[in-house]
This record gives sequence, C-alpha cells and structure tokens, in this order.
Amino acid sequence: MPPFDVPEGDPFGPHNLPYGVFSIPGAQEPTVGVRLGDHVLDAGAAARALGSPYASLLARPTLNPLLAAGRTAWSDVRRALTAWVTVPSHRETLRPLLHPLASVTLHLPFEVADYVDFYASENHARNVGRMFRPDAADSLTPNWKHLPIGYHGRAGTVVVSGTDVVRPSGQRKAPADPAPVFGPSVRLDIEAEVGFVVGTPSTQGRPVALGDFREHVFGLCLLNDWSARDIQSWEYVPLGPFLGKSFATSVSAWITPLEALDAARTAPPERTHPLLPYLDDTDAERVEPGGYDLRISVAVNGHVVSEPPFATMYWTAAQQLAHLTVNGASLRTGDLFASGTVSGAAERERGSLLELTWNGRDALELPDGKRTFLEDGDVVTLTAWAPGPDGTRVGLGEVTGRVVAG
Amino acid sequence: MPPFDVPEGDPFGPHNLPYGVFSIPGAQEPTVGVRLGDHVLDAGAAARALGSPYASLLARPTLNPLLAAGRTAWSDVRRALTAWVTVPSHRETLRPLLHPLASVTLHLPFEVADYVDFYASENHARNVGRMFRPDAADSLTPNWKHLPIGYHGRAGTVVVSGTDVVRPSGQRKAPADPAPVFGPSVRLDIEAEVGFVVGTPSTQGRPVALGDFREHVFGLCLLNDWSARDIQSWEYVPLGPFLGKSFATSVSAWITPLEALDAARTAPPERTHPLLPYLDDTDAERVEPGGYDLRISVAVNGHVVSEPPFATMYWTAAQQLAHLTVNGASLRTGDLFASGTVSGAAERERGSLLELTWNGRDALELPDGKRTFLEDGDVVTLTAWAPGPDGTRVGLGEVTGRVVAG
Repeated sequence: MPPFDVPEGDPFGPHNLPYGVFSIPGAQEPTVGVRLGDHVLDAGAAARALGSPYASLLARPTLNPLLAAGRTAWSDVRRALTAWVTVPSHRETLRPLLHPLASVTLHLPFEVADYVDFYASENHARNVGRMFRPDAADSLTPNWKHLPIGYHGRAGTVVVSGTDVVRPSGQRKAPADPAPVFGPSVRLDIEAEVGFVVGTPSTQGRPVALGDFREHVFGLCLLNDWSARDIQSWEYVPLGPFLGKSFATSVSAWITPLEALDAARTAPPERTHPLLPYLDDTDAERVEPGGYDLRISVAVNGHVVSEPPFATMYWTAAQQLAHLTVNGASLRTGDLFASGTVSGAAERERGSLLELTWNGRDALELPDGKRTFLEDGDVVTLTAWAPGPDGTRVGLGEVTGRVVAG
Repeated sequence: MPPFDVPEGDPFGPHNLPYGVFSIPGAQEPTVGVRLGDHVLDAGAAARALGSPYASLLARPTLNPLLAAGRTAWSDVRRALTAWVTVPSHRETLRPLLHPLASVTLHLPFEVADYVDFYASENHARNVGRMFRPDAADSLTPNWKHLPIGYHGRAGTVVVSGTDVVRPSGQRKAPADPAPVFGPSVRLDIEAEVGFVVGTPSTQGRPVALGDFREHVFGLCLLNDWSARDIQSWEYVPLGPFLGKSFATSVSAWITPLEALDAARTAPPERTHPLLPYLDDTDAERVEPGGYDLRISVAVNGHVVSEPPFATMYWTAAQQLAHLTVNGASLRTGDLFASGTVSGAAERERGSLLELTWNGRDALELPDGKRTFLEDGDVVTLTAWAPGPDGTRVGLGEVTGRVVAG
C-alpha cells in the first residue's frame, strides 16, 4: 500500500515530485513544497520532522538555495524525498505536513536571474517565415540551421501561473498607416514553451560544454511567452522583440527536476546541416540525447486548441545552453531559458494563435465563439505530460493566466 | 578652508559625491563609499561615527538598499553627506574613514536586476544605417523617430570598471562564405554609453509617466557596451543582438546621483516628428528638460580617439523609461538601462570603432600603431564631465577595461 493516497497512475505520483513554493493563506511564510497527487508536502517541515540535514535547503522561501546546491545535492534530496513519501513508517509523521493544493497559494518558485528566449522549433520558424516573408527563397533565415537563435527577455516580469495578465498598450502601425497609433494591443497572443532552470552557475569567460548540460540545469517548467503581435511587428527591426514580450511571461508553479524525466529523453530530429563542434550532438558516444518527449496541450477557456509535441524541437536545451555560454557569458543560479514556441508539423500542433489562425486569417471556432487573437477574460492554460518509468506518466505543472483589460 | 584636502575645482569635490562600493584588501567586507577627490569616504562608518540614522542604508555591501529607499531618502542622505564633508568640525572624526582611491578595491556598486540597452543617438543610428543599408531611402528604420528602440541585454555579465574583458568566441559568416566559422571575434568593438540606475520600483501593469523619471531613477554611470561585430552581424536577424553583446558590459564604479547633475540638464534636440503623448516632451510646462550635457571622452591605450557629446542624444532617459514601462512592464530596484552608443555629428565624436573606422575601412592612427577593431591588450577608458553649479565641473567615474585573449 502506498503511504499516501495518491491514485495508481497519477501523473504527480512519487515518481514525479516536482518542486514549488507555497504558503497557507494567513498562516505561514512561503516555503518549498513538493507536489504529491493533489497535495503539497511542506518539504522543509518534513525534513525537520525526520531529522534530515536538507532542511537548510528546503525550509526556504525560494528554490534558489536548492538550485545553487548543485547536481549531487539535487540527487540526494530527491532520493530522500522519494524515501519519505514511499516508506510507510513515515506516514503518520508526514500526514499533517501534506496540504490540499486547493488550500494553498503558489508563488513564483525561484528568483529569476536572466531570462533568455530561444526560437528552436523549425515548424514555428518556418510558419513565421511563410507568413511574414512570403517572397523569400527559404522560409528560414540563413543562420537558423547553424545556431539556436535567442534573445534576452525581461526577468522582472516573469510571473507564476494564475497571475492575471494585463493587456498591454503600445504603439502599432500597419504598413499602410501614415503614423503609429497608441492603444491596447489588438493582437494579443500566447506562445507555448518549455522553460529550463539553471542551478549551478558558471564562470565568465568559460563556455559550458554540450555534455555538461545536466551539471547546470536543475529542471524544467511550462512557460507561456505572452506576445502582443502588433506591438512586436512595429518595434522589432533592427534590435528584436522588446515591449511586445516584456509585459508578462508566465511559468508553471512546479519545477520538474530533470531526473524525473529520464524516461522521456529522446533524440532530436535529424540534423540537416553540419554543426560546429560546440553544437554537434550527432556523436551519441560523446553526447546524451538532448530531446525531451513532452506532450503539451493548449486550452483556451477550457477548450483544447492545440497539442504541440516538444520532441519535434530542432535545437535541444543542451545546445541552447552551450550556445548561450560559448562567448564566455556566465550563468547564475536562477537563470531561465525558454525553448521558443513549440509547434509540430500538423496544424493542430501549433503553439501560437498567430500560427493556428494564420495571422488572423482563419478564426478558431471555440464553444464560446470565434477567436483570432485573445479577448479580455480569456483564460489560456498549458498542460503537459511525459513518459515516466514503467509506463507511468510524469505530469508537468500547468501554466494558466487570464487576460484582463488594461 | 574646506575640511578635506580636495583641490579647488576638483571635479570630484563636495558638489559631486558619487556613490560606489569599496573594500580595503584583506581588511574589510565591501561597503558603500562616497568619492571625494582622490579618496573614498567609508559612508556607513561615517554615519555611525556621527550618529546618523542613515547607517542602515550606507553600511551595506551594495547600493541596493539606498536605491530602494526612494527619492526623499536620496535627497536626505545627500544633504547629510554634504554637511559631513563640508562642516569643519567633522574633520577629525571623518579623517580616519577616508581612504586613498589607490588603496581600495572597487566593486560592482549595485546588483543589476534587468539590463536594457537603447539606441538613442540619431547620429549613431544613421551611421549604422549608411554602413549596412546603403541602398535604403532613409538611413533610419521607419520606427526610429517614433519610439526609442531598445532590447534586453544580459544583467549577469555586467562588470565593474577595471575588470578584464575576455575576447569572445563565436560564429561568424561573411556574406560570401559558404558556412559559418568558429573562433575568437576579429571585430571586437566598444560602445560609449551612459547607464541609468533605477531605484524606486513600479507595479506591473502601471506605466511610469515621463514626468515621474526622477521619482524612479537614482543616478547615472558611464557604460561600455562591448560588442563583437562579426558575431552580432551573423546572429541578429530576426531577434536582435545576443552573443555579440552578452559576454561583458562594463560600468563605472561610481554612480552619480541625478541631483549632482542639475546644472547639466538641457533640452534635447528639436523633435522632427510628432510624438505620441506618452513620449511627448515638447511641453515645457508639463515635462522638465530631459537631456544631460555630459562630455564623454574615449581613449584607447591612453590616446583619446573620440569625444562624444551626450547632449546630442535624440531620445532622453525619461522617454526611454516611459517607453520601457508603457506596456505595463514593471521596474525593480537595480534595473539598469543604457542610452545606446553616443555619437555626435562630427567624425571625432563617434562612440564606436565601427563608426570611427567606418566598419574597418579607415584605420585609426594611434601612437602604438593602427587600429580598426580592438587587439588583445588594448585598454579602453571612457571618462566624462558635466557642468556643475557655479562654473564647477562634475566628474563621472571612469569605466575602463583591458581586452585579454580567450
């Protein structure tokens, strides 16, 4: 009998154990929690109750101390947690430290240092190219197959799942307009992405090799890179996206450790172009497979509009990390880098409304009406699961947000 | 007689009092210091010795607590410091707390939250346009006169003046090359800029008005936005600069409070295009003049190669802050935003080697040889001064860095 009442087959069973930060309204400061089914275990209190030395990493208001502790500590803590929630003799000790999810407030689980967003889906990049550069010989820019294109986003506006997103205002100008106009964005979009959380920092001037990915990256989360397409299209030449993205980026409240996703590792798509050595992941003896088989689902007001398959991403997170640091840029604990919009090859696998509606041409039919871009009151929710050990599923924490008028 | 031995006319006299963070090697943790001539006053120790309540803001390892304290506190602390260093009766108390600059280590003065870089010099933007889009009808992109173009940079690689800069490696590809090659940048450049430091945070969803600039911005510093032109030109379409910039950004060790620069305030250049209301600074009754008359000097290995005039910047820092937040993006204490390369109209007023050598076509003649871009061992130093009260000069702290091989 499992010591806690997690149903057989629950994607948040003891094989998963993602980390978050929670508080009990009115009763407690935020502290690290571990999700078990539809409950949260107060991990710091559990460590104290069981006399574990890991209380110093877990009885904390953010995950940053655990992130900074490094890969060996991550494994040790996970092993301890697994024992706590699976050994029946701990049942009575831990039961008072388990809180129903519905009774707690979930917080941004870590302090974000730098936030970088990539552009790693070939399907997404080709869709964007076809829409906005229809006359180009190739729907990809010339650099796309040689490096994982990325840019820095705003770390200070990363918010936790459940936070309302205020519709941004800004300048927009259609090509035929004589001058820009100002007002609330009329082309508010989502981007379904996966975010990777850096734990172990690196030294300025020293690149991180492809094979050292798991020494530095602690885990991953779902991420919605809200995008105001009208603001973005007017501002982004020549220095890239800025206000079209910086108003909000939502992350799930739960960070899934990479160790929970070993069964989901998969080879990325075949490389169509030779890669420079620092990005070359085609030698299986030197580099472990860098893809993750995550099945994402995008729902608008509870209605699923797309199921983007993360396994189709051309560039892996390991390649992104190697590229991000190859110029000597250092990593800090809490750095967050995101995959870019995840889009599969099929129409119903696209990770943005821009692509799903082909830039507003083909409205989506939702039960509550047609949608091209988001309306005030719309709630967007990303969920995902991955193959776990022995036929189980590993759930990722959802990321959800409601659009509210500015 | 002034209480301390600062020569008459010293640009770091009691009318200036910039803030930094210093330590005495082997003897002390980093703490806030105030520069007075060629000495540093241990500001926290001074506050304690004089029984000031500001010790809690000044006896700290970064400026962040002072930054977060807000505009009224900034004024109060500055008034107190001015009294301490000008009232003769404090002389004996403070003398032991003054350390020669040459005897201390200067540290990054604040924890950088988000770093944003703008592109606010019309001369610079036009020079870049002429070089890279020679066939365009206008050397500016269509949006340039309507909004201050900006992008997010890497906060984690902002370093203090004096830090060596490791030459970055990365991909580069000339248009005629069949594929990119990898190696150390061969077009390493500088950008002479001014950085603005945010003290008072703002709320997500609430833009900061043009007139509230001085409520949020504490002070400014010199900034060198090192740039690898070859890496940048291959990577930057379509999402902007990334690895070409993220390896290092140097800031001066001294943050000059805006209050020290009141005599340097000046009107920006005449606006050639109508501005949307949130950026419109043409109504002098509503908006104070947003320009600053800073005279910058760029030296390579001690030889002055350029003197960029900051007063020529088209977009002001107040406009940049209003734009940065108009979409609801929030500010945090420690946010840093930079002006973009400062280039005047004259050839010897350009703030980058890219412009000074016209993309490497016209080498600079230095005493130690010709330069197009930077060589290993080169030391680049930016200095600046501004008009102060009563005919004085206000010095800005220098920002210097040596290029070392990777």
